[in-house]
Parts: sequence; C-alpha cells; structure tokens
Amino acid sequence: MQVIDNGRALSGKQQRIAERRGQIIAAARICFRRHGFHGAGMAEIASLSQLSVGQIYRYFVNKEAIIEEIVHRIVKHRIQLMLDNGNELSRMADDLTNDGLLDGADADINQGLMLEIAAEATRNPRVARILCEADAMLYRQGCEMLQRVYPQMSADRAAVLAEMMAVLCEGTALRVLTHQQKTDRAQLYQLYMRIFTTVFPSGPADG
Amino acid sequence: MQVIDNGRALSGKQQRIAERRGQIIAAARICFRRHGFHGAGMAEIASLSQLSVGQIYRYFVNKEAIIEEIVHRIVKHRIQLMLDNGNELSRMADDLTNDGLLDGADADINQGLMLEIAAEATRNPRVARILCEADAMLYRQGCEMLQRVYPQMSADRAAVLAEMMAVLCEGTALRVLTHQQKTDRAQLYQLYMRIFTTVFPSGPADG
Repeated sequence: MQVIDNGRALSGKQQRIAERRGQIIAAARICFRRHGFHGAGMAEIASLSQLSVGQIYRYFVNKEAIIEEIVHRIVKHRIQLMLDNGNELSRMADDLTNDGLLDGADADINQGLMLEIAAEATRNPRVARILCEADAMLYRQGCEMLQRVYPQMSADRAAVLAEMMAVLCEGTALRVLTHQQKTDRAQLYQLYMRIFTTVFPSGPADG
Repeated sequence: MQVIDNGRALSGKQQRIAERRGQIIAAARICFRRHGFHGAGMAEIASLSQLSVGQIYRYFVNKEAIIEEIVHRIVKHRIQLMLDNGNELSRMADDLTNDGLLDGADADINQGLMLEIAAEATRNPRVARILCEADAMLYRQGCEMLQRVYPQMSADRAAVLAEMMAVLCEGTALRVLTHQQKTDRAQLYQLYMRIFTTVFPSGPADG
C-alpha cells in the first residue's frame, strides 16, 4: 500500500515512520483526554500504541513534541475546513449557531484536547509557544482567504475581521461545554447574519 | 475583627469556617494552577493551607467541592463586574479590545483555572455540572440586566444577545493566550462598536 502525504508518495521507510507517528498520536490523544497532559505517562502512551517507550522516543523527543504534532494536525484540519467554507456568510452563521464549528466528526475530542493544551500553556512556556505558532498559522491563512474572497479588502481590515471570526469560533467552541441555555437558535442565526452582513463587504462571498 | 459575608455579620464560629474555607481555596487555586486538577493532591493543598488533610475534609467533601467553590467565587466576581459595566457599549468594546474582560486583577489566574476546569469538565460529569450551573447563573443575570437596561426588550432577544456577549467574552479570554496577532486595536474597537450599535437598541445604556 502506498501512503500519500501532502500529495507526495512516500518511500517505504518514510511510510513506516508516518504510520508509527500516527499510531503514537492516536494513543496520545486518548491518554491526554483520559488523564490530562500531566496524568498521561509515556508508558501508557507506549502501551496503547503497542510500542515500547524507547521506540516512542525515536519518533518524538518528549511529550511537548507529541502535543506539537497533535496541535499541528488539528490546525491543519481546521484550515482545510475554513478554506472549504470560503467565508460564505450563511454557512458561518449556521456553524456558529449549531456548534458545528470547524472540526467535523472529531469536534468534541479535538475541543477537549485543545482545552487541555490551552490549560497547560498557561503554565508551560513551550506549550504556549506551540499554541501561538499554530494560531499564527491559522490566522494568517484566514487573512489570506479574506483577501482572496474580497480583493478590495485592505490587509488591516482582513486582520481585524479574522480576529473577530477567531473570537466567535473559539468562544462558541468553549460554550459548547455549558451550552444548555435556552437560546432560540433561529434568532441566534439571524443575529450572526445581521453582524456578518454589517461587517463583511457585500460581494462575491455570499451567493 | 468582624467578618461580613453577603452583608450579614458572621458569628465567631461562622467566621472561623469562612476563614478556613478561604485558606483552602487560596491554596487549591495555587495547586490546580501548578499541576492541573489531576496533579494537585489533597496533601499539597493541606500543606499549603497549613491545615491537615483531615481538617480539609471537614470543609470540603472532595476536590470537586473545592472546584465548585472556586468556580462559584469567580462567577460571583464576574457577575458583579458585568453589573458594574451596565451594558455600556463603549466599555464592552474597550474590554474586548484590550483583553480586559471581566476579571480585573486576577484575570490571568482565573482564566487559567477556568481552562483547567473546562478541560476537566470534558471527562468528568460532576465538574461539567458545576460549570453548567455556574454558567446558567451568569447567563440568567446577563439576561436580567439587559431587560433592566432595555425595558422594551423581549426575553428571547435578551437571551440571544446575552449568548452573543458570552461567546465574545469567552472567545476573547481564550485568545489572550495566543494573542500575538498584529491586529490594530483601534480598528478592532471600531468593529465591536459597529456590531454593538447594530444589534443593541439605541437607548439608555450608552450615554
């Protein structure tokens, strides 16, 4: 079986490395979700990924490197979904209203992991750096997409709108946890549409 | 010294209980911040609060009860700040732009604790319940405040606006962690003011 990564065909050796890393990431996601970043030990991650602890250290130098890869994959996925969405206003309002957001099937797990990692970032500068770099990547892609969709938009304006969208997406994702309020979803959708049509230029994005 | 709690003078015994609970909460906040909810043990909380583990269990039946009290105090503080703010639009836009938000001096610590607790809520239903109840209280007070400030506003409309404000506040608080983007703050302020003047009735709130 040939594995394709980023459009390139991988050699046999690269393929084995990619598979091993995938196994470790899958196991680590489960362990971090179960016990938090501190509670999850390399021994358990090794056992779940059916590798030895020594083998794991061949692929990731420490737990932070595993976190970095987890965050990187989540953000890559979110960028893809954001680009698919193409700043279509009604789709963004729908996502915000229905807690759909940017994560698809793994939304709950990814959101739990990102919270775990954000909590760790408040006390661990290396994890904070990982989170900052990932956010900068997502943010830059958001700005670039806005300028593609609205060619007249200035870079400053795109930056401010990207920041507002990031705030709305992350706030909504956080509130999914406690979201038992009796907010009328149709009215919330209307409110977001009102906001978007006010602050985004009317133009090619919303057909 | 007489301690006043919620406007009531406390008896000597109640006063001692309030002091002990305060000591334990202060110690637990430090421990949870240092090691996360799982890493923080009752022994360390006891040692930091200069009490025995047995004494702690007289005031809190378990770690969840300590979390409940921490969340309760943070939310009480946030409700007070929200009520002080009185839905003055320019003040809200300023808070969102300058990451001021609702927490004053302890903002970073409270935000870190709330992230920790939110991460724990994704795997611990008792903690999820604590967070939901606290959020419901904050949300209800937000709705009531809006209806006091805008007497013509329907309950449904107040609920939707309270939800939007909660999303903006929580999203902004979460993004403080990674907030190194070069967003122009003056433009972000203008954007939030544009949103608020569009969705809030023009009326008594903004003088």
